[in-house]
Amino acid sequence: MSGRYSLGLDFGTNSVRALLVDVANGDEVATAVFEYPSGEGGLLLDRRDPNLARQNPADYVLGLTAVTRAVLEGIDAGQVVGVGVDTTGSSPLPVDARGAPLALDPRWKDDSAAQCWLWKDHTSHAEAAEITAKAAEQGRPYLGKCGGTYSSEWFWSKVLHCARTAPDVFEAAYSWVECCDWVVGHLTGTLEPSRMARSVCAAGHKAMYSRTWGGLPSKEFLATLDPRLADLRDRLYDHAVSSDHTAGAITYEVAAATGLAAGTPVAVGAFDAHFGAVASGARPGVLVKIMGTSTCDCMVHPLDNALPDIPGLCGIVEGSILPGCYGLEAGQSAVGDLFNWVTQLTGRTHQELSREAEALRPGESGLLALDWNNGNRTVLVDPLLTGLLVGQTLHTTAAEIYRAYIEATAFGALTIIRRLEEYGVAVKEVVNCGGIADKSPLVMQIYADVCNRPMKISRSGQTCALGSAIFGAVVGGVYRSAEDAQSAMVGFKDRVYLPDPAAAGIYAELFRLYSELHDAFGTGHGDASLGNVMKELIRIRERVRA
Amino acid sequence: MSGRYSLGLDFGTNSVRALLVDVANGDEVATAVFEYPSGEGGLLLDRRDPNLARQNPADYVLGLTAVTRAVLEGIDAGQVVGVGVDTTGSSPLPVDARGAPLALDPRWKDDSAAQCWLWKDHTSHAEAAEITAKAAEQGRPYLGKCGGTYSSEWFWSKVLHCARTAPDVFEAAYSWVECCDWVVGHLTGTLEPSRMARSVCAAGHKAMYSRTWGGLPSKEFLATLDPRLADLRDRLYDHAVSSDHTAGAITYEVAAATGLAAGTPVAVGAFDAHFGAVASGARPGVLVKIMGTSTCDCMVHPLDNALPDIPGLCGIVEGSILPGCYGLEAGQSAVGDLFNWVTQLTGRTHQELSREAEALRPGESGLLALDWNNGNRTVLVDPLLTGLLVGQTLHTTAAEIYRAYIEATAFGALTIIRRLEEYGVAVKEVVNCGGIADKSPLVMQIYADVCNRPMKISRSGQTCALGSAIFGAVVGGVYRSAEDAQSAMVGFKDRVYLPDPAAAGIYAELFRLYSELHDAFGTGHGDASLGNVMKELIRIRERVRA
Repeated sequence: MSGRYSLGLDFGTNSVRALLVDVANGDEVATAVFEYPSGEGGLLLDRRDPNLARQNPADYVLGLTAVTRAVLEGIDAGQVVGVGVDTTGSSPLPVDARGAPLALDPRWKDDSAAQCWLWKDHTSHAEAAEITAKAAEQGRPYLGKCGGTYSSEWFWSKVLHCARTAPDVFEAAYSWVECCDWVVGHLTGTLEPSRMARSVCAAGHKAMYSRTWGGLPSKEFLATLDPRLADLRDRLYDHAVSSDHTAGAITYEVAAATGLAAGTPVAVGAFDAHFGAVASGARPGVLVKIMGTSTCDCMVHPLDNALPDIPGLCGIVEGSILPGCYGLEAGQSAVGDLFNWVTQLTGRTHQELSREAEALRPGESGLLALDWNNGNRTVLVDPLLTGLLVGQTLHTTAAEIYRAYIEATAFGALTIIRRLEEYGVAVKEVVNCGGIADKSPLVMQIYADVCNRPMKISRSGQTCALGSAIFGAVVGGVYRSAEDAQSAMVGFKDRVYLPDPAAAGIYAELFRLYSELHDAFGTGHGDASLGNVMKELIRIRERVRA
Repeated sequence: MSGRYSLGLDFGTNSVRALLVDVANGDEVATAVFEYPSGEGGLLLDRRDPNLARQNPADYVLGLTAVTRAVLEGIDAGQVVGVGVDTTGSSPLPVDARGAPLALDPRWKDDSAAQCWLWKDHTSHAEAAEITAKAAEQGRPYLGKCGGTYSSEWFWSKVLHCARTAPDVFEAAYSWVECCDWVVGHLTGTLEPSRMARSVCAAGHKAMYSRTWGGLPSKEFLATLDPRLADLRDRLYDHAVSSDHTAGAITYEVAAATGLAAGTPVAVGAFDAHFGAVASGARPGVLVKIMGTSTCDCMVHPLDNALPDIPGLCGIVEGSILPGCYGLEAGQSAVGDLFNWVTQLTGRTHQELSREAEALRPGESGLLALDWNNGNRTVLVDPLLTGLLVGQTLHTTAAEIYRAYIEATAFGALTIIRRLEEYGVAVKEVVNCGGIADKSPLVMQIYADVCNRPMKISRSGQTCALGSAIFGAVVGGVYRSAEDAQSAMVGFKDRVYLPDPAAAGIYAELFRLYSELHDAFGTGHGDASLGNVMKELIRIRERVRA
């Protein structure tokens, strides 16, 4: 042990985690988790509106204090060289002129619009569609870097929805801040909106921020959405930076509460998945898949290597993952959630279904599914898509369906890889992290076979927090760059899932059929005749069974 | 009570049933069921070949003796005016020159090819395809009356498959007899093939028999399939008749065994579903749906009213249901079987799922299914089709899926009605019988709403056996015609399911989408763009939920 540590703080959907890491080698020295006490598992919900999902910012402060205290037990705070922070996003919250959340003000604390608008809040889908339509019809460049379609999960949709549906909250708010920036501002005492460091990851991927058009979208454009948004722009920011920048230092107040040393440097924040990618060895040519209930796919691409806009990709942002590279984000809206849904539907456990599904050969069930039960994030960028299962007989079993949905998510993953490569981003290696990558050899082998590429697994089971710690080590001066920190602190599991050529051959045939369904149902531009689909599935099934 | 009875004998897939009926009013006086002792639930199966399904003819004799004895208890045999017989079909069995089943000969009793080839035996799918292809390429008219496609469930496919795969059995057989003819031959001592009465229902629907081309297909045609089939034609029959004809009278041997009076007249046999249709009030304009694991749809059409060939209908046969009318047969390959499959998949009971599904409004699940888990019998006539479910979200429940499959079978039913009407057969009334019609108000209401027509339910819970009894009464001289017997002996339940106009409106929209999927996946001639399907389902769902 080097005796020098970095602290990573990872604010998730239901809890916050602290990870204390040895900066010399990435060894994970201590970890602690705090479940958010508010609402249901940390989520403020509304029975009348399934699209609503908020968080109470008070939980962040309670949580970071608890987990930091816990991991520092027995550690000299002076050994902690730096702190990194990642959160979910886009999760903006309304704040007053000093940067204090409206939600902490007794006047607003019970108003759901005054809370943090969690990434998965979809109340603003109409506003998202309006932003997409107006940007397109005005010929604005803003959507070029986010796949051509603005999302209800993102900053401006949410703020506009607040302005329209909760104008009192909107009026009371001086400004709006991404959760990852707010936490860093709180740790460093720089909450005043004009002084607060802003994450280029959050700004670029979710708020249409780009250097190429001078920061956030123009006031003229925002005014066409709502004049109040144009006014708000003056109280936002002009610059956002990558996480190798120091946002500030731990304040005396935070030091007293958490046990950290005052003055410890804190890195600019970012989104959890992006830091997870860094901690999984993101570098040009490497696709990192963060696999959980949904999946986030991250890649980086050298800034000096021209990159076109890539349709359907939900972000291409300078410095959002690694400084000095474009950060590319894609994703699948339901992966683990889809497998959970099959268990709920069938009343069976993952263990049972996995054991039975493992005994099946590719193609032998005759089933094929589209993995769109929660819409399609990449490459169709369409939340109004749904699931599809074809090929059922009267003998189709729950395990066959479970496997078909695993395969469907793998076909979705391959569709993303194909899109990246089609636009000049070569995928030379795939690294997986997150709960599913850790726990399911079945899923990982299917991904290797479907994508016909080896699947590596990140060594760490908590890559997002590790990514935060990596940037803590960078701002702590241990490494000159995130890449240097990665070289020392990142590792992989010994087991690499290698594609089986026979399985890959079958899956190549099934992927062709998947693509037919994908285009027919997803774009309406498919080849009209789907009369071959059931027949070919049966032909493959009979061949495999013979 | 009139003191005059008719006996209906109904030979099913797993058991034989006797029903003793008061000829004056159709009252069901006594019933008895005998489960076939051979094999698994009466089926002789082969673990290596899931397509194989045979029956042991010895079970028929054992069974008819037991059930007849049981229902005659306390009855004077002289009060029984006649006997009718229905069986499954096409279920042919090989017999020797005296009409004795090879399966009862010690030399052949363990050979599966020597047994009765049950309707659901699909071992001969290659032969069926060959018959279809050769009839078409030679420009033969034979398929015009059976929808254009010959089936592996039918007579010639099975006999040809036996000739090719069990030539010793084929050589040992003098001839082949449909089960319904064999049972009647046994009862009346007319088993010698040249003397045996032949059912026009079996001959016309399954053996390409028609007066318009002089009976069975020509020797020339059969020789192109196999010269041995051409030879066999000489040992089959030239005439087949409807069930208002007397096939013969109960023999002394059968009388002694069963308790019936020797000399009691026996009607020419027919298939179970066709007699079920008669007992449900089949007459021109009335569609009778016999709803069980699969569904058989029957109609009649006046002989003097010109009728074109109807593509996809699996039979148009003179006199097969009511003498003096064309009998039209259509069907759905899986109905109750599909609902059973959902219960197996989800581990839930019909009762639970029905209760939850009943609380759902049409369209609110956003789901749509194709009911093809066992292929499509009418109108696509394609066993190589499979099931499809679209519209799933992460919140989709088992009850929603259960309801979606009920709706899918109703859309399939409506597709058949549309096809009939398109070719000039008006469907003015729908009568349902069978287990599902009796037991599931949920299914019946959905059918009423989807088809936008009232759904009547047959009074009898055992319509096939009642149909046999109706023909027993006709040959017993109580009535001059089947129609007269129907007037006296057929009734309906008081409860008629009436369509709800609001539900019918939603279902009209969903049926349009069902038809798009039906054509795209079933024919390959669909409108190419299915990009609207998921969107429209969501739009309907949101409207219904609002």
